[in-house]
Amino acid sequence: MENEYIHHAQYYETDQMGCVHHSNYIRWMEEARIHMMEQMGCGYKTMEADGIMSPVLEVHCQYKSMARFDDRIVIRTRLAEYNGIRMTIAYEMRDCATGELRTTGESRHCFLDKAGHPLSLKRSFPKWDALFSEALKAGQEMC
Amino acid sequence: MENEYIHHAQYYETDQMGCVHHSNYIRWMEEARIHMMEQMGCGYKTMEADGIMSPVLEVHCQYKSMARFDDRIVIRTRLAEYNGIRMTIAYEMRDCATGELRTTGESRHCFLDKAGHPLSLKRSFPKWDALFSEALKAGQEMC
Amino acid sequence: MENEYIHHAQYYETDQMGCVHHSNYIRWMEEARIHMMEQMGCGYKTMEADGIMSPVLEVHCQYKSMARFDDRIVIRTRLAEYNGIRMTIAYEMRDCATGELRTTGESRHCFLDKAGHPLSLKRSFPKWDALFSEALKAGQEMC
Amino acid sequence: MENEYIHHAQYYETDQMGCVHHSNYIRWMEEARIHMMEQMGCGYKTMEADGIMSPVLEVHCQYKSMARFDDRIVIRTRLAEYNGIRMTIAYEMRDCATGELRTTGESRHCFLDKAGHPLSLKRSFPKWDALFSEALKAGQEMC
Repeated sequence: MENEYIHHAQYYETDQMGCVHHSNYIRWMEEARIHMMEQMGCGYKTMEADGIMSPVLEVHCQYKSMARFDDRIVIRTRLAEYNGIRMTIAYEMRDCATGELRTTGESRHCFLDKAGHPLSLKRSFPKWDALFSEALKAGQEMC
Repeated sequence: MENEYIHHAQYYETDQMGCVHHSNYIRWMEEARIHMMEQMGCGYKTMEADGIMSPVLEVHCQYKSMARFDDRIVIRTRLAEYNGIRMTIAYEMRDCATGELRTTGESRHCFLDKAGHPLSLKRSFPKWDALFSEALKAGQEMC
Repeated sequence: MENEYIHHAQYYETDQMGCVHHSNYIRWMEEARIHMMEQMGCGYKTMEADGIMSPVLEVHCQYKSMARFDDRIVIRTRLAEYNGIRMTIAYEMRDCATGELRTTGESRHCFLDKAGHPLSLKRSFPKWDALFSEALKAGQEMC
Repeated sequence: MENEYIHHAQYYETDQMGCVHHSNYIRWMEEARIHMMEQMGCGYKTMEADGIMSPVLEVHCQYKSMARFDDRIVIRTRLAEYNGIRMTIAYEMRDCATGELRTTGESRHCFLDKAGHPLSLKRSFPKWDALFSEALKAGQEMC
């Protein structure tokens, strides 16, 4: 399925508690988000080449159980909100082998031009806007 | 003031957008939290030696403006909730030089013994419980 | 080929120079080394379960050209030296698409028991010793 | 003393072996190097503003003993080689409390303009060249 991404937990991501340090899940969200956008046809590299940046406005993560070194984690990603100016992406991370829920999370984003000014994709990048709107519809149908 | 901590933003913390990568603020929260607990008399190392771990249940961060390489960031930390079993810590990060707000955030924690079982500090570690209760009161008075 | 490992460069691995921060290659070496040991039949997790740790004694990396966000890097890994007590692993990282050399490197390791005392695999773990000796021979034939 | 820098080891820098992950020392070298350049009057930010970048060509680190969470590490840094085109910086990291040697290391650097072309500081930035030459002499007298 296209909005799934797998991360293989690395040794350097563990901490002395013996499991993955909680800050790494925020990075895994970014990996999964970039992968989802690639799948949507909105590769992040192409966006940056078009002069669009998409900084993080807010991030939220709930830790349900602990991932460990060498675990494979499947991250399901869904465009939960999009209005042309802002978007919210929702994440669910589960252990590949057992299906056990590891974390849930959300990130909120806006769009900026290279000078750092807010962008309306709807107005300035209708091509991108259409792709995000489509993905939003697909995401809503998944719920 | 005792619940302030200063982080000096490092080059390796930046990303290709030219500012600090958003995941690092989650790590700075940990730095500031450990510093606050040290100030409260609840050094994390001592807690771990006593067999108490305090994993993160949830983390939340709002990004208001961007920190850059070499900036000094003052992080104000406050024990916002504590009931003997769980606690919430609130964070506010500002640029040292200008006072501009960078991020606000929260983290929620529980307490576990070495076997990973939930602990009530109130029941099992009254000494620690008293320190946290005191810090909660001090934090409430600050608001 | 079994001693090849591919790393997909992440956004959070870049720095404000616009390419991957040099410290990350040291982490990619670890990823590739753990993958190589898995392929050899010496999975790191199994080694740790057997009570063997293999800390890094020395690391060396030469940067030839810069990897960027979203690049795929193929890492060729070879057991260059092994004498039952210590080992040296050699790395070569190239861009997947162009074959351009990114970095070369080496890491040296010893073996410790859980108490942190040096181990001779030859003496204490002949099964592991045989696997490393075989991999050394295979590595030498590759040169 | 001006070429000393102190790093406070963070919880997120540890790994499941219970001590600081070896890749972090490469980052600490960068912290100490940037601090040394600041002390020399060659702040990295000013250099980047002048259009000079100083990428890492090579890095080398020998691990002698392990730093742990909450340790304070003093890093002594010395400009070991400089010829107007390249420089080598040498590092020694010791535990602040006990003086025990943690790591020694070296990094080699060149200078690039914003387009990525090699720069001779001697020819193009005599002011910077003079500062580096002075620091080299001071470093040699320290030996």
